[in-house]
Amino acid sequence: MAHINLPDGLPGITGLLTSYPETAQHLRGFAETLLRGPSSLTSAERELIAAFVSAKNECVFCMHSHAAIARSLFGADRNLVDQAIADFQQADLSDKMKALLVIAGKVQQGGRLVTEEDVASARAAGADDKAIHDTVLTAAAFCMFNRYVDGLATWAPDEPAMYEQAGAERAEKGYLYLAVSNE
Amino acid sequence: MAHINLPDGLPGITGLLTSYPETAQHLRGFAETLLRGPSSLTSAERELIAAFVSAKNECVFCMHSHAAIARSLFGADRNLVDQAIADFQQADLSDKMKALLVIAGKVQQGGRLVTEEDVASARAAGADDKAIHDTVLTAAAFCMFNRYVDGLATWAPDEPAMYEQAGAERAEKGYLYLAVSNE
Repeated sequence: MAHINLPDGLPGITGLLTSYPETAQHLRGFAETLLRGPSSLTSAERELIAAFVSAKNECVFCMHSHAAIARSLFGADRNLVDQAIADFQQADLSDKMKALLVIAGKVQQGGRLVTEEDVASARAAGADDKAIHDTVLTAAAFCMFNRYVDGLATWAPDEPAMYEQAGAERAEKGYLYLAVSNE
Repeated sequence: MAHINLPDGLPGITGLLTSYPETAQHLRGFAETLLRGPSSLTSAERELIAAFVSAKNECVFCMHSHAAIARSLFGADRNLVDQAIADFQQADLSDKMKALLVIAGKVQQGGRLVTEEDVASARAAGADDKAIHDTVLTAAAFCMFNRYVDGLATWAPDEPAMYEQAGAERAEKGYLYLAVSNE
């Protein structure tokens, strides 16, 4: 049971966004801009970073949700997502994406761990300032979202099909869209 | 030197908010609502949680900034802020505030660490759902802001007077206000 009173049937962050609309309005706009707005990274790459950090934070709801969104956006390359979460250095990802996941993994542990060498490696592999910025802010943001979801002990469904269906819908419609059925 | 190109003379998050206005717009609105909007916690109490978590994350800029804002808002009780950061269980805080700082400290480490007993203690000391929600989300949010500021190696000034002046201005005018001089 969640630590505060939340509506039945709304998993993870969706119950929180429904019950606390004042902060939700800004969190939705932030997620939409960060994960789907203009960037030198694709939305699929940013969702992969979100899923990767959520896995490191052991946030079941966010990890399954954003992995499903990333799979939907990667399309034919959907297997990259689970590969990256399992062992990104062995995944069939670009050197740029591997270097950015090194940075994201450091940020997950603490911002001060990111080194000049980490950033130089990402630049050498083709990352620009915007890619580095969006990687750091996405990793940092999921250190927030994961703690919000788990710190209030929200409900995480077990059924993979639920995450796949919600992920495909989110990939298509984005974070400003409020589903009738589950939000 | 910061990991990405940022304008000179804008410390901590202020250079990031200036250079990346698309996400900044949502982050400013979120901070204003979370820290200064309607709540069963005072703004001073929420800023204290922000400073407390920033200290635990060793984010020098955020810790000094939000401690200064909290001191300004606490007024005659301003010494509570440094007491709470040094050792909150020995500080002259209410039992409710101590119970909420236990929760905030758990969230800083990871959302899954908050227990039913932690929440029951806070309720027994007078915290309602909104206070528990705002404590968890504020602690989570500063796990993001701290990582954003430090993950990109932004500049943190050394001068205490700078933080006191900026803190008094922020306490008065809030997060939607853009200072000409330092933002």
